[in-house]
Amino acid sequence: MRLSYLGPRGTYTEAAALLFDPAAELFPFPTVGAAVDAVRRGQTEAAVCAMENSIEGSVSIETTDILLDPAANIAVCGEVVLPIQHLLVGAPGVDLATATVVYSHPNALGQCRASLAALAPKAKPVASLSTTAAIESALAEPGALAIGGERAALLYGATAYARDIGDEHGNETRFVVVAPSDHAPTGDDKTSLAFTTQHDRPGSLVTVLGAFASRGINLTRIESRPTRRQLGTYIFWLDIQGHRDDPPVAEALREVAGMTHWLRVLGSYPRWAPRG
Amino acid sequence: MRLSYLGPRGTYTEAAALLFDPAAELFPFPTVGAAVDAVRRGQTEAAVCAMENSIEGSVSIETTDILLDPAANIAVCGEVVLPIQHLLVGAPGVDLATATVVYSHPNALGQCRASLAALAPKAKPVASLSTTAAIESALAEPGALAIGGERAALLYGATAYARDIGDEHGNETRFVVVAPSDHAPTGDDKTSLAFTTQHDRPGSLVTVLGAFASRGINLTRIESRPTRRQLGTYIFWLDIQGHRDDPPVAEALREVAGMTHWLRVLGSYPRWAPRG
Repeated sequence: MRLSYLGPRGTYTEAAALLFDPAAELFPFPTVGAAVDAVRRGQTEAAVCAMENSIEGSVSIETTDILLDPAANIAVCGEVVLPIQHLLVGAPGVDLATATVVYSHPNALGQCRASLAALAPKAKPVASLSTTAAIESALAEPGALAIGGERAALLYGATAYARDIGDEHGNETRFVVVAPSDHAPTGDDKTSLAFTTQHDRPGSLVTVLGAFASRGINLTRIESRPTRRQLGTYIFWLDIQGHRDDPPVAEALREVAGMTHWLRVLGSYPRWAPRG
Repeated sequence: MRLSYLGPRGTYTEAAALLFDPAAELFPFPTVGAAVDAVRRGQTEAAVCAMENSIEGSVSIETTDILLDPAANIAVCGEVVLPIQHLLVGAPGVDLATATVVYSHPNALGQCRASLAALAPKAKPVASLSTTAAIESALAEPGALAIGGERAALLYGATAYARDIGDEHGNETRFVVVAPSDHAPTGDDKTSLAFTTQHDRPGSLVTVLGAFASRGINLTRIESRPTRRQLGTYIFWLDIQGHRDDPPVAEALREVAGMTHWLRVLGSYPRWAPRG
């Protein structure tokens, strides 16, 4: 599959694309918007976009804005959940005790603060634009280290001195895969939707959620975001279990369409199940 | 008021602290945890913590983890919403058309990509650990620019060449103020709570929300986050209108306590209303 994504090569987004399709042909782009444009042009079949990304910046706002844009003509056709594992890497033969500098994206540096103090106490944190750029910098400088992912370390031939050095373990990032149309039913699917309700109506969200609950449809994610256009109004993002073509889901969505001020079904797709 | 916060000085978090209390005495700390520890030691009266922060890293996970820690002994006693306005700054006399470099936190650089291409087309983006560090670097280098906030520009005496250069306008970041106890009722309050429900019970969230809706209590934010400990279980974060001592809220919370698997009322506090 030809997959576009937010580059550069070696980032966690690239790792997510390869987890989604190990045989993918990969096309990095400088922004999420450009990665999605490649799908619209037909250059790639789908784009992998972070829904939340605590590692390499605030691309999630970009992804949600694109999903909401009616002119975008794209749908969610898949998801992939990537375990985030930071590695401490460098050129061969670096002595951790005397290493002088450690490069990474500031978010990753912040997430490894305690481990770094223990592993490489003399290494001063220096910011890079991405974990990939960090590894490039470290390899070009004697005694320098970097924090990055397995994929980037492999790509650049960097030596891994420590694995899973994040201060918090079990972190995961969820990505959506977008394409011109969503996915056919597989029997184990999810559906993403976004909607707004009438302002200041405490019961409206409950009524919408009730339309799913009364049919035994599980919610796997809910989030409210203030709309930037109007103070005090919210867009709700919902992921539910089931495909929009499954009769109970289809029925619930019809009911919800009549309850909401604005509703967009973003797509149905196979629920992510880790390979292996 | 003595306020601790995630430093360094001049960051957007500092601007939020000053928006919360323009007369505050400010104490920067290297982590959110250390800022909250200062409250527990009595060094400061409260700590200002980002609930979501797309500008200077993924501190929100740190904040929510601290709020959930029963040993933390802290409550939410306030909130503050900061409009995020990026400035393009530098030493006096920089020519934008020929400026060679622009420093900032990678997230801020990403958020100003289009504006930068138009304003300073020859300036190469270079990463800094914070917007404050970016301004320091720019001031030390002829022909260099930085992206940072008003507060940092003021603090360092930098010249502002353009204001509000974010590609998206209207961005805001919400901060909570935490202290040993929450706030007395003021008549216009909010309450934050977190809870878990039984796994795989589609109706349980609806029932909880119904306890508030049936009493006319508005929801101002809802978010589900997977718990890191157990796959498939979620913590729900809710902000509702009203104080936990208001009779309808108190009644709803008693009802909700009986419906949830685990419930924590994080605190009641005055609803943020922009000064002016």
